[in-house]
Amino acid sequence: MRFFGVLSVCLLLIGCCVCQYQPTWESIDSRPVPEWFDQAKFGIFIHWGVFSVPSFGSEWFWWFWQGQKWPSYVKFMEQNYPPGFTYTDFAPQFTAEFFDPNERVDIFASSGARYIVLTTKHHEGFTMWGSKYSWTWNAVSVGPKRDLVNDIATALRTRTDLRLGLYHSLFEWFNPMFKSDSDNKFKTNVFPTAKTLPELYELINTYKPDLLWSDGDGDAPDQYWNSTGFLAWLYNQSPVRETVVTNDRWGYGSICNHGGYYTCTDRYNPGHLVKHKWENCLSIDQRSWGYRREAKLSDYLSTEQLIASLVETVSCGGNLLLNVGPTHDGRIVPIFEERLRQMGQWLKVNGEAIYNSSAWRVQNDTATPGVWYTMNKQSGAIYAIFLSWPSDGIVVLTDPVVSAAKTQVALLGSGSVTWQSTTPTGLKVKLPPLTPSQMPWSSAWTLRLTGAQ
Amino acid sequence: MRFFGVLSVCLLLIGCCVCQYQPTWESIDSRPVPEWFDQAKFGIFIHWGVFSVPSFGSEWFWWFWQGQKWPSYVKFMEQNYPPGFTYTDFAPQFTAEFFDPNERVDIFASSGARYIVLTTKHHEGFTMWGSKYSWTWNAVSVGPKRDLVNDIATALRTRTDLRLGLYHSLFEWFNPMFKSDSDNKFKTNVFPTAKTLPELYELINTYKPDLLWSDGDGDAPDQYWNSTGFLAWLYNQSPVRETVVTNDRWGYGSICNHGGYYTCTDRYNPGHLVKHKWENCLSIDQRSWGYRREAKLSDYLSTEQLIASLVETVSCGGNLLLNVGPTHDGRIVPIFEERLRQMGQWLKVNGEAIYNSSAWRVQNDTATPGVWYTMNKQSGAIYAIFLSWPSDGIVVLTDPVVSAAKTQVALLGSGSVTWQSTTPTGLKVKLPPLTPSQMPWSSAWTLRLTGAQ
Amino acid sequence: MRFFGVLSVCLLLIGCCVCQYQPTWESIDSRPVPEWFDQAKFGIFIHWGVFSVPSFGSEWFWWFWQGQKWPSYVKFMEQNYPPGFTYTDFAPQFTAEFFDPNERVDIFASSGARYIVLTTKHHEGFTMWGSKYSWTWNAVSVGPKRDLVNDIATALRTRTDLRLGLYHSLFEWFNPMFKSDSDNKFKTNVFPTAKTLPELYELINTYKPDLLWSDGDGDAPDQYWNSTGFLAWLYNQSPVRETVVTNDRWGYGSICNHGGYYTCTDRYNPGHLVKHKWENCLSIDQRSWGYRREAKLSDYLSTEQLIASLVETVSCGGNLLLNVGPTHDGRIVPIFEERLRQMGQWLKVNGEAIYNSSAWRVQNDTATPGVWYTMNKQSGAIYAIFLSWPSDGIVVLTDPVVSAAKTQVALLGSGSVTWQSTTPTGLKVKLPPLTPSQMPWSSAWTLRLTGAQ
Amino acid sequence: MRFFGVLSVCLLLIGCCVCQYQPTWESIDSRPVPEWFDQAKFGIFIHWGVFSVPSFGSEWFWWFWQGQKWPSYVKFMEQNYPPGFTYTDFAPQFTAEFFDPNERVDIFASSGARYIVLTTKHHEGFTMWGSKYSWTWNAVSVGPKRDLVNDIATALRTRTDLRLGLYHSLFEWFNPMFKSDSDNKFKTNVFPTAKTLPELYELINTYKPDLLWSDGDGDAPDQYWNSTGFLAWLYNQSPVRETVVTNDRWGYGSICNHGGYYTCTDRYNPGHLVKHKWENCLSIDQRSWGYRREAKLSDYLSTEQLIASLVETVSCGGNLLLNVGPTHDGRIVPIFEERLRQMGQWLKVNGEAIYNSSAWRVQNDTATPGVWYTMNKQSGAIYAIFLSWPSDGIVVLTDPVVSAAKTQVALLGSGSVTWQSTTPTGLKVKLPPLTPSQMPWSSAWTLRLTGAQ
Repeated sequence: MRFFGVLSVCLLLIGCCVCQYQPTWESIDSRPVPEWFDQAKFGIFIHWGVFSVPSFGSEWFWWFWQGQKWPSYVKFMEQNYPPGFTYTDFAPQFTAEFFDPNERVDIFASSGARYIVLTTKHHEGFTMWGSKYSWTWNAVSVGPKRDLVNDIATALRTRTDLRLGLYHSLFEWFNPMFKSDSDNKFKTNVFPTAKTLPELYELINTYKPDLLWSDGDGDAPDQYWNSTGFLAWLYNQSPVRETVVTNDRWGYGSICNHGGYYTCTDRYNPGHLVKHKWENCLSIDQRSWGYRREAKLSDYLSTEQLIASLVETVSCGGNLLLNVGPTHDGRIVPIFEERLRQMGQWLKVNGEAIYNSSAWRVQNDTATPGVWYTMNKQSGAIYAIFLSWPSDGIVVLTDPVVSAAKTQVALLGSGSVTWQSTTPTGLKVKLPPLTPSQMPWSSAWTLRLTGAQ
Repeated sequence: MRFFGVLSVCLLLIGCCVCQYQPTWESIDSRPVPEWFDQAKFGIFIHWGVFSVPSFGSEWFWWFWQGQKWPSYVKFMEQNYPPGFTYTDFAPQFTAEFFDPNERVDIFASSGARYIVLTTKHHEGFTMWGSKYSWTWNAVSVGPKRDLVNDIATALRTRTDLRLGLYHSLFEWFNPMFKSDSDNKFKTNVFPTAKTLPELYELINTYKPDLLWSDGDGDAPDQYWNSTGFLAWLYNQSPVRETVVTNDRWGYGSICNHGGYYTCTDRYNPGHLVKHKWENCLSIDQRSWGYRREAKLSDYLSTEQLIASLVETVSCGGNLLLNVGPTHDGRIVPIFEERLRQMGQWLKVNGEAIYNSSAWRVQNDTATPGVWYTMNKQSGAIYAIFLSWPSDGIVVLTDPVVSAAKTQVALLGSGSVTWQSTTPTGLKVKLPPLTPSQMPWSSAWTLRLTGAQ
Repeated sequence: MRFFGVLSVCLLLIGCCVCQYQPTWESIDSRPVPEWFDQAKFGIFIHWGVFSVPSFGSEWFWWFWQGQKWPSYVKFMEQNYPPGFTYTDFAPQFTAEFFDPNERVDIFASSGARYIVLTTKHHEGFTMWGSKYSWTWNAVSVGPKRDLVNDIATALRTRTDLRLGLYHSLFEWFNPMFKSDSDNKFKTNVFPTAKTLPELYELINTYKPDLLWSDGDGDAPDQYWNSTGFLAWLYNQSPVRETVVTNDRWGYGSICNHGGYYTCTDRYNPGHLVKHKWENCLSIDQRSWGYRREAKLSDYLSTEQLIASLVETVSCGGNLLLNVGPTHDGRIVPIFEERLRQMGQWLKVNGEAIYNSSAWRVQNDTATPGVWYTMNKQSGAIYAIFLSWPSDGIVVLTDPVVSAAKTQVALLGSGSVTWQSTTPTGLKVKLPPLTPSQMPWSSAWTLRLTGAQ
Repeated sequence: MRFFGVLSVCLLLIGCCVCQYQPTWESIDSRPVPEWFDQAKFGIFIHWGVFSVPSFGSEWFWWFWQGQKWPSYVKFMEQNYPPGFTYTDFAPQFTAEFFDPNERVDIFASSGARYIVLTTKHHEGFTMWGSKYSWTWNAVSVGPKRDLVNDIATALRTRTDLRLGLYHSLFEWFNPMFKSDSDNKFKTNVFPTAKTLPELYELINTYKPDLLWSDGDGDAPDQYWNSTGFLAWLYNQSPVRETVVTNDRWGYGSICNHGGYYTCTDRYNPGHLVKHKWENCLSIDQRSWGYRREAKLSDYLSTEQLIASLVETVSCGGNLLLNVGPTHDGRIVPIFEERLRQMGQWLKVNGEAIYNSSAWRVQNDTATPGVWYTMNKQSGAIYAIFLSWPSDGIVVLTDPVVSAAKTQVALLGSGSVTWQSTTPTGLKVKLPPLTPSQMPWSSAWTLRLTGAQ
């Protein structure tokens, strides 16, 4: 890969007919986020790896156990495993025998999500595909004994409703090559040259994802990772140069600053409009991204909470990337399936206010709490999503400018509703009585306003 | 235990001051079911054992795999285990490391159940307590390395809202002593003498349960099991003789016929009044009592279906015993927890129509489908539980005899409602509008009628 | 088995045409040890069981670990196994995949042994056959998944040079039924009734051994074990009543006192003539009977030491029962094979002085150390076995009475040797020079004297 | 390591004051083999690795199983492991809990060997030290969880009688980087650059061995491996440049041709004088280098055969490298220990004819079979080692030129012997009678001739 890293860059530049993007942030940042991503609004994040075997605490298990030596992790290992058991000893137990890619993708699709993002390699360094650069520490050599990235990619290829995204961690907690570079204050770059970059090229060329979700800079600057060099190749030359979307985690300081869309922090949900395209990644299990066996029901967000997060995020210009952690044996546990299918049920009725929508001039109603707006630029419709059903059956919308002649209001899933304007602006909407079987969720209903502003 | 089986019966008879019950069905059947059981209405069944380790197919895994050699079971083993792996090899993997008895009991209590029934030994023969008669094939010797029956019993002892029931299988599929007796057409009784009866005495004397749920006669007559002898001891002499309740599975032909309350078949739900006290045992997973990893969301009954079953069962004079299967590592998975807590939420509002209730003169409304009645003998109130909310907001009750002067109608959880009588009998009730946050379930609401007949 | 213990004794007595032996020691002890045993002189003892899995310390592993809590055993477990690992968890690892009964029996036969004694159940209670009375704790249910006793018995059935002996432990360290009887000071006998006696009958009836090597009285008297009752059956009624040989370990106080031949203590080797037939059981590994992975070469007796033990034992009227411990995966390790084959090589030349021999009037030479005598009653030959080759090539035998006319002396494996008489008795024998390839052992050569007394 | 492979060579050349050796075979081959190696004569080879876990067939287990798919290997896996079990799954079972470096080294020293050679990485690619370039596939990450190379190196550091040699395989059967280079007909060299060469530098710099035993060129030319470049560094610059010895396995065509001493083939034993220093590597187990559980006693060479091999090899100018395979749990099994200690016993008496000896003008006697000569250049003594003891006690040596006046003959371990000259040359030696306790081996005795030619 020495050739790849050095020679092939030269060769590629020669072969590059129109090299639109230069390996500088200025140039990289100038590329617009491909449109499909903004229209999609809702994706599924999947944290799956060797950490799904202990399935305890968090997907950061290895680090908390042996890097931080947190007592709860140390005790868990002492009580349940033989002395000297190492993290790599978990890998053979990553069996995935219940993993059916089509079935899993069907569940994701049922949620109404439009893309998925799979952890192809988390900070543990275990590659979920048979990487040439991670021999014996990958899902084909040990554990599942199958190329899990390929399994998912193949299942997606037959359908048009879901796009493929790949999560990839730049650094690896315990890789001695990384540790050695780190000890050298990143003056050497043995690790990115031998591992990270060859892997990234391999991933993109092999699986041709529409989204690359980079993570984990290990406090190293983007120069160490050669991030702009890689992104220039990705945007100019790669087989996915037209459609690919990336995020902003490409080196120390790049987050919320450079790259593709912004992720800023985990569970980023600012509550106000953000101009640069952004994403709120959120896990159903509030305390972990990987599956955690000891999770209680109370640790899980309810469907109502999830819908509310989606509504707020979309109103403010973001996408929601909702995370589930599969088990070591390859299952999406039924409670996750239930959450996802209920999201889908809600979106079947209310999706008109979400997909392809744009932020409106106001995000949440000035006077009535729990009302969030979106709009559809093509139709001109304004959507007001109210999170709780008022006990008197009256919703007050302060911000829309209505006219008795032109404005029409409907409750999605039900039909036209009566309303009257209020002063100085806005309107009062009278909700119809609904039986529980009509809309079996207890939060978030949508009013569509046409002929309003 | 030879002494126990022969001599001690003699000794006990001497020590028996008032031996009310004789070892005959006529005498045994004459004992009334203790009142607490009829008042409780709702219990939790727990199927837990070595079968929770493969956690595939059913708790009958061993039998379907090696007795019946069903292809799906044979294939599962071939694909995931080494050749020659036996069922007993699963036992060391029955780890139960996440089992917290108090936490588990809290979840059960949150459902509104009033008793629990734990499988202390299923047909696999593995005793969940450290039985002297099942050495090395019990939960203290192998697997959990703790006395699981004691753990649960101890957790219950500190609380008053839940009673302890113990499930116990008479026969064991593969016990060679049983097979030998069976080959002898039950002319020999080595197995009950050496195993079943000593175990039963040990269980009752050690854990003092309020309920003994017998199962699995192995097609052997009750004489083989010495069931009436044991029950006479249980009713006359045992430490739980005052409170203990049993069921009807005590030998070939006894089911739905002799013993304590009737269970008749699994998922027994006749839909009409049954005079003899009975119980409907029902599993959330429609296809298994033990935890099954491959279960889909669609295999699980919804909370609405569970509430409907409870309502129908209680209306017809039965109790509902709702089953959950814990995992091999000791968890009640969150989707089961969610179902149970939602049951509890419903019962908090509607429990008045369930607990301590009796069957009314009519079980389900003559004209309106989905309306089930119960009554409270002490207060005289009649309860009409309607399973679906009528789209016009009007519930018609055909059977109650009402009078404008004396009759009052209320919706539980809401308050008085207006009604008008219909001819020739009955009444029409106008339901109030309810917001989703008031009663967040989409099935089963209760009208209480006082001053009606 | 209640019937067996009580009824069938009655039935058997009726069926017993000539009941020669009564269930008293006086009667039992009056039976002569069948001749084949005295003629055989040399047997192989095989200690194999679940203890072969940890293969550490001793076959008493379980007791020393959890009964005595010896630090070296506790530490071994702490360092190599998960917390809570129990002894029964070893059983699945008792794989025996390299066990070939014919091959093993060939090795035993190559040693010149005439019988073998296999541990069918050691104090751990694990039965090496599929006992009906030890369900799930036996070699068919778990571990090897084959009936190891049957395997060996079948391999022996095709050959005439080796007889089958079965070792069986009366008590079991941790069997709760035994512990309960023991706590009752053996006033109850649940354990022998439910376990020990049914097993013994099953063993004898199924495998028809020529030798039953009883062990492990657990400090209980023979009355508790009903030993004389069982032995009366064995001698009068059992299928092996004509040929079966037993030893003396049948209850507290019976050892070296009652039963069949005497074993007295492990490694019993009194060095003088013992009138009652006896056996010296001796393990190649001086510190363990079961295979021990940590054994050093220096822990093993050399072939020369083993031959010397055989010679001394036989001279004094005993049999040598030489022990080897197979591994958990079913192998006799090559160093044991080498020892055994070298024994066989020696016996091929010197066996004439061993098999079918009797003790002579003197056991070891009055004046010359390391010379042991045997005789053959039929031929009248006297054998003088000298353990070290004298540096001057002259062996002095003090005790034989020789005559120049009639006495002839030969070195077995070589031929006639010259000698001259000494005064007052005895003779001086001049040894021939021997090359190392002729007799490739460095201890124990035999002089045969005919025409001497 | 790109820098190491390219830049650092330049830097090293600058830093190299006297760069005696150039990276050409002509220059490399001109370096004489350091003297210590020729004087040592006898070393121990240790084949230890993940292949010691299945411990079946051969250390080539992985290749025969999954590369060649030989039926016996495929069947072994099918019968004993779960479906889908991979070779990497063996690694956690490489426990080495009985490995005591000092004890092991003591055993090696007791054999009289003067150096040892440990497999630090066999073709499986598993590094027995914590290599930075073999993350997760090394003995520190998985299995023993200790640096086995360091353990041995440290144990050797405290003693002066044994030197450290390290075996290292250039290629790795299944490494995808190697396979990719191989598919490119070795026009690319990703693998040596990223793996082999960094490892070799790491090994030499960290453990400073006196011997580097290269193996496994994978049919790639030495240019691919950059062997002469590495060897020039090793001979000019490395910390062991003064003492290090290497062999001849450095690329396709180099064996028996280039590098250090010649190994030519496994078990190379030409039977005539070879001028270039050579080594005969030989395994006690004739069918495997790694420990094989199914080995029979007859597969093992006897001590007599081993001594004969040593004698023949040394007579012809070679060294013997005698191989033992430790077990997965870290033991040298007692039969190997016995062979080694017996070698040592023989060498204690006969070592004078072996260590520091040179080939004589004749290697084996012209007329008498089984007689091999060595000489000591310093003392002028000639040694005639005869492998079998003549039945008449007379050894005829045809080749020495003796003189009645000056020649003296002694049997090592015994003393002067009488002899007479024969015509035209040579002598007849009369051996003394020896008792078995004096020289307890049955092959190979040494006559020392002084004053002869």
